[in-house]
Amino acid sequence: MKVILEEQGLRDGLQTLPKTLSTKKKLEYIDRLVAAGLQRIQVASFVHPRLVPQMADAEAICQGLNKKEGIIYSGLVLNLKGVERALEVNLDHLACSISASNTHSQKNARKTLAEAKSAFREMVELCNKNNIRVRGGIQCAFGCRYEGKIAPSHVLDMVKFHLDQNIDELALADSTGMGNPQDVRELMSKVVEIAGDKPVILHLHNTENKGFANLFAALDAGVRYFDTAFGGLGGCPFIKSASGNIATEDTTHMLHQMGYHTGINIGKIVDISLEMHDYLGHQLPGQMYQLWNNSEIEII
Amino acid sequence: MKVILEEQGLRDGLQTLPKTLSTKKKLEYIDRLVAAGLQRIQVASFVHPRLVPQMADAEAICQGLNKKEGIIYSGLVLNLKGVERALEVNLDHLACSISASNTHSQKNARKTLAEAKSAFREMVELCNKNNIRVRGGIQCAFGCRYEGKIAPSHVLDMVKFHLDQNIDELALADSTGMGNPQDVRELMSKVVEIAGDKPVILHLHNTENKGFANLFAALDAGVRYFDTAFGGLGGCPFIKSASGNIATEDTTHMLHQMGYHTGINIGKIVDISLEMHDYLGHQLPGQMYQLWNNSEIEII
Repeated sequence: MKVILEEQGLRDGLQTLPKTLSTKKKLEYIDRLVAAGLQRIQVASFVHPRLVPQMADAEAICQGLNKKEGIIYSGLVLNLKGVERALEVNLDHLACSISASNTHSQKNARKTLAEAKSAFREMVELCNKNNIRVRGGIQCAFGCRYEGKIAPSHVLDMVKFHLDQNIDELALADSTGMGNPQDVRELMSKVVEIAGDKPVILHLHNTENKGFANLFAALDAGVRYFDTAFGGLGGCPFIKSASGNIATEDTTHMLHQMGYHTGINIGKIVDISLEMHDYLGHQLPGQMYQLWNNSEIEII
Repeated sequence: MKVILEEQGLRDGLQTLPKTLSTKKKLEYIDRLVAAGLQRIQVASFVHPRLVPQMADAEAICQGLNKKEGIIYSGLVLNLKGVERALEVNLDHLACSISASNTHSQKNARKTLAEAKSAFREMVELCNKNNIRVRGGIQCAFGCRYEGKIAPSHVLDMVKFHLDQNIDELALADSTGMGNPQDVRELMSKVVEIAGDKPVILHLHNTENKGFANLFAALDAGVRYFDTAFGGLGGCPFIKSASGNIATEDTTHMLHQMGYHTGINIGKIVDISLEMHDYLGHQLPGQMYQLWNNSEIEII
């Protein structure tokens, strides 16, 4: 059985780091990730460079892409302005994302949920008009640091709202890592059923050490698309040492052990994580990059 | 539904550390773990002090215990000599453990599997004769760094052998963290069925970031007893930075979120992990101790 991973290391992974990776290095990593077998890569986010300086080169990245046939190079957009910027650099896949939490939406996007929904509709329409494939995303689907747990019934309402727009794929994000595997299995089973033929993607964080349990639970629920980041980059902005996205190499290793096919070469991801470890000068949250090349450890 | 955790931080957690915690500090932690709600604590292992100097004070620990009614203070024994030492210091619960891997058994215990089984029988007999409650353990049940994956049929044979002896509880250990949740759910379902009324305990390591997924899978299989270590101590002896046992506070948090009762006060475990972090001078693998007291993070 096949599972498709979308690499988020160059967007979610980098956006909270104290150091800003050069455009050249990001482009090199994008090529190496494709060579490692990743079929989907989120290459940038079109947010205001004052707010997220690590993503200030979004246009330069998109213009510098050495595009390969069959690979999805995607950008994250949170408002209409973002879509307009992405249109000018010829991305053909965009992740349009709003939050399930009203408070998070107001603090992060300065929009009430109603305003965010209205903006989402406009974003999708603009993408549709320009033949851009749309991944519709719901942030904080399993919890918000301001509001706590988000009611599953509310998330299902948002799922239905998303599916009523003309999106191509649906993504739910446990942005805070607050989800637990029991809730993930229950909610994602319903989401997969409602979504029908549309791909359902799950974005998981390992902030509370439940990321991989949530991955397993979502597999039970029938989810076959996941976001990951090399080295487990993408930590919580409040806590420097906290785990980030589930690590691409750790996820791949677990999936391969359980008989799933990903097409990903773990060793090539490990090389990138080792370089990032050296660049940042500290240990990353991923485990497998530390074990993979150790001659005393046999990985099976 | 109730889940019982056995704290392994003072044995598995300490035995690979470069620093040796004082007997006084260990005894203080044991009392604090009981005050935090732990009902089972492995307080020491009776191995040769030359091999594991961190456990050289096993007798002193047992003699210094401030025993509380209803709490299980247990010791790990790997041979008859260990049982004899434990008898002299009046422990009433012992974990007698052998490996499922022939190579690991030969390298670690200098016994073939046949010799280890014979020694196990003698250990259990000596415990029975002295009215000591026995936890029979199988190490490397999901993989061995020398032999790779261990055949489930072989592990089930060992489970039956263990149950044929007069043990009170059965424990399986994923000593290397190589297990994956699919295999854990499948094998543990069978083990729980075979074990009947006898408690089945699972000892998990997060070395490859699958520890908490394996915990969730084992809950599916009906396992209700787990070993954990505060802060996630107990790293792989080959890799300094690798994750160790699943962290007591992270496990408790995940269980509570899913509606299980543990009787454990997470904040009190977090305090111990924070102290160990300072004592060791580096980050521990657990996530929750880093988040718990952070005023910017709401834990729900």
